[in-house]
This record gives sequence, C-alpha cells and structure tokens, in this order.
Amino acid sequence: MQKSAIKNGNIIMEEDALVPVTVREVQSNFSVYEALRVVNRQVVHLNDHIERLKASAAQIGLVLPSVPWQEWIDMLIEKDNLCDVTMRILVYGGSKAVVFITWQPLITYPDSYYTDGVAVTTYFGERFLPTCKTSNLLLSYLALNDAKSKGAFEALLVDRHNQVLEGTRSNFYALMGNTMFTAPDNEVLSGVTRISVLRAARQLGLDVVMRAVKLEELENADSMFISSTSMAAMPVSKLDGKTVPCDFPVILKIRDLVRKWEVE
Amino acid sequence: MQKSAIKNGNIIMEEDALVPVTVREVQSNFSVYEALRVVNRQVVHLNDHIERLKASAAQIGLVLPSVPWQEWIDMLIEKDNLCDVTMRILVYGGSKAVVFITWQPLITYPDSYYTDGVAVTTYFGERFLPTCKTSNLLLSYLALNDAKSKGAFEALLVDRHNQVLEGTRSNFYALMGNTMFTAPDNEVLSGVTRISVLRAARQLGLDVVMRAVKLEELENADSMFISSTSMAAMPVSKLDGKTVPCDFPVILKIRDLVRKWEVE
Repeated sequence: MQKSAIKNGNIIMEEDALVPVTVREVQSNFSVYEALRVVNRQVVHLNDHIERLKASAAQIGLVLPSVPWQEWIDMLIEKDNLCDVTMRILVYGGSKAVVFITWQPLITYPDSYYTDGVAVTTYFGERFLPTCKTSNLLLSYLALNDAKSKGAFEALLVDRHNQVLEGTRSNFYALMGNTMFTAPDNEVLSGVTRISVLRAARQLGLDVVMRAVKLEELENADSMFISSTSMAAMPVSKLDGKTVPCDFPVILKIRDLVRKWEVE
Repeated sequence: MQKSAIKNGNIIMEEDALVPVTVREVQSNFSVYEALRVVNRQVVHLNDHIERLKASAAQIGLVLPSVPWQEWIDMLIEKDNLCDVTMRILVYGGSKAVVFITWQPLITYPDSYYTDGVAVTTYFGERFLPTCKTSNLLLSYLALNDAKSKGAFEALLVDRHNQVLEGTRSNFYALMGNTMFTAPDNEVLSGVTRISVLRAARQLGLDVVMRAVKLEELENADSMFISSTSMAAMPVSKLDGKTVPCDFPVILKIRDLVRKWEVE
C-alpha cells in the first residue's frame, strides 16, 4: 500500500514528504514536532500535544501557522483508513512554515517488557532547551544508539551535576519507599504522558517529589521506570548492565491507569 | 538558470536535493557538513575540509562513504560552469549514507565590514560536541537570529564559565598587547581558516596563546576579530552595542595573508 501524508493541509504521498537541504531552517533543525497515538481512529490527548507543540515553537521563536489539527489528522486517517497508528507532526519554521503529518504502525512493545522490565544505560549529556521538543536531537540519537549497542532499550541522560533527568524519548521516575521522584518540569521535556503518570501515582497514594535524583542515589531506589506516549509506564530492571530491584505491580497499575485515561 | 547539485555522485537539479522527513537520521540531524570556497574554479583547502569532515563523522560514528571529492566537485563546476562560489558538502548517515554537494554565489562581504569592523553580540550557550561540524545547529541558528535582530553581524557563544569560545559560524580572537588569545582546539570548531590565521599571526610577530578569554577580560582587549572560510579575518568594532577598540591594520594584514595562502 502506498502511504499518504499531509503537507500544509494537502494529502501527498509519503515519499513526497521531503525537505530541501539548501534551506537554512532545514540545515539548522529549526523545527518542532510531536508524536501522537491514534487508537481506534481517535487521537489521544490531541489538545495536550498541540499545546506542547505551541509552547516548543514559542520558545524558539518559530511562528506556527494556524492549523485545524483535528481536521488534517482526520483527513489522513480517512485517506489511509487508519485505525491504530503513531502519528508525527513536524513543523519547520522559516519565512513560510511547513507542516507535515506522517504516520507509522502503532509503536507497541512486547508484554515481556512490562512483566520483566527493560534495560537502560546512562549517558552524560544535556539537552539544549530541555523543555522544548525540537528536532535538535543529535544527543538523543547518539545516546540511544549507545544504549542499543549495549543491548539496552533506552538511555538515561545524566547532567553535569550527576542528575538523572530523563530518557532520550521518555521521562524517568525513581521510587524510594512511598516517594516517587522525578525531575521538575523546567529541567526536562514535560511529557504528555507524564501528566497522567503523576496523576496515577498520587491516586495510588505515592508522594510525588519533583526533584531529579542523582546517579549515586539510584543505589537506594526501590524501583525505576520510564514513561512516554508509546510506553505509558515501563519498568526498568537493569541499569548499566546491573539488575536493579523493581516493584512491578505498582508500575503496572500506573501503566493501566495511564492507558485507561487515554480512551476516556 | 536551473541550478544543479550532486547527490551520491550523480548530477541532479538542485530542487531535487531533498531528504525525507520520515527518516530517523534526518529527524535527528545525524549529518556532517563543510562549506567550501571555490575561487576561479578551484576549491580552496579541499584536503583540510575533507579531513575535518572525516573527523566530524568519526566523532559521531557516521560512516562516510569513499568519495572522489575532487571529481564530484569538478563535475558540478563543469555542469553549472561555476567560477567563484560557496559550496556545501552535506552527508547524512544511516544504513546508507547520502552525500549532497550544493552551491550558492560566493559569500562575500562589503569592504566596509573590513575597514569599519562589524558588530557582534554575546549569547550564552554551549555547542554539543564543539569540535564536530554536525547539523545539530539550533543553538547557532537562534544565537545568530538574536544577533541579527540587534543589528549585529555575528553572535559570540559564551559558555558556563563565561568564556567567549567562538562565533556561530566563525572563530574568535582577542588581542591584548602583543598577545593573541583564542580558545584551544578541543573547545571549539577548529576552523580550516583558523589554521591560516594562527600562522599569519605568528608570522606578524604576535604571541599566540590558546586560551579562551572570559567575557569580563574583553574590557582589556586592544582588538577583537573573527575568522571563517567566507570572512577570512574580520575586525570587530562593536560588542553588545558598545564600541570597542580595534587595531585594523594588523587584522587586515592577517586577512591578506589568509587570502594569499588560499591561492598558493
């Protein structure tokens, strides 16, 4: 099947979703993006994603055009008869902004990732404009490649103060006793799913503390997990090759609440 | 006239120098580049640029294909009958690397920029992998836009230690007495033109010290200038809106030597 895409409100063939390498905004990744879950033909948390897209754009001075997002997404769902997919909105700035919407099969993970946990590695590096979802992604790309080369699923980014802030495509949480630690909103990408994770944790009676834990503190953690639109909440069972403790039931309860609220 | 470009050794129309937004390496700016001066149909310092391209690629683990650079560049010079132009080599990594060579009219600057100096601003931010010429350029893009919005020609990037390391597309030098300061090679992009600037400075009897000056030290500078392939050596006459002293003759002597050695 020939996949379609949206460019500035028009249906195009996905293979025509192209940008010229001679344009400065392309050369300099002056662009913002969002990854969205479409479940049963419905976009999950569209408004939250669009709000974050707007916030990212505002932060770098990228002027977003006025777009009927729901309508454009529905055009693509209709055209390719999509049911469950992961969509990507990408907006390049410049004298005339260019908006792309593309899709791929829904990103899902084997059940064993949730029941056994995943392996993560650590990588020293700080995201430029951490609260902003731009295409300036080379650090994340290199960190994730490093993790994969070690057989791990995700890399956690560690800053100059040895703080474990977030993953390359996920937020990060550490449980110690009844307290759940996660970096404050101004130090990381405030994930759309993170909002649900925090709500779920509180509902389950955890104390939520918005403070990044240091790498050395992780030795005292009772559990760690990561979250993203695709993962919901995913338990971590290995850190830099070493098995770490994990309270699976509580993390899976968080996951289940996150997924439940998606379709409400 | 319809411009041409090179893609993987083939002549294409420049308007077809495109990359797909659905490819992870494009989304994550996993690419390296070089900007080259072509003067009188000859590429200036091609070997130095290719060496730096290779070093940049190696640093991020991008596997460069084996390319007959001179031959491909000559194909483009021949096809579009080019004499004096600025060329750009851009290589996207991935399972199959993609090489583009594009051109634009030779970047030159009015004589007054050299005789009167240019205005620069300062911008706090650190380049990721500073010795590496990748497309991870959002910081430079934003810093330069900020400079331009203030009527300045270039932005100087200042790090967490208040060190003035380099411009967004230039190296930076401060003269104090008979000493010329510039950041060490491991903290900045080691410009191809910078090699000539250092050689020229030494030939003119200056002591070269490879140490970045701090922002507050610039108050004691007798002169400042910036260098790049396009600029050679360009005097700075304003810093953050304030007029600063400048020994134009010595900087223009450096510029003249840099340009002379280009065509030797």
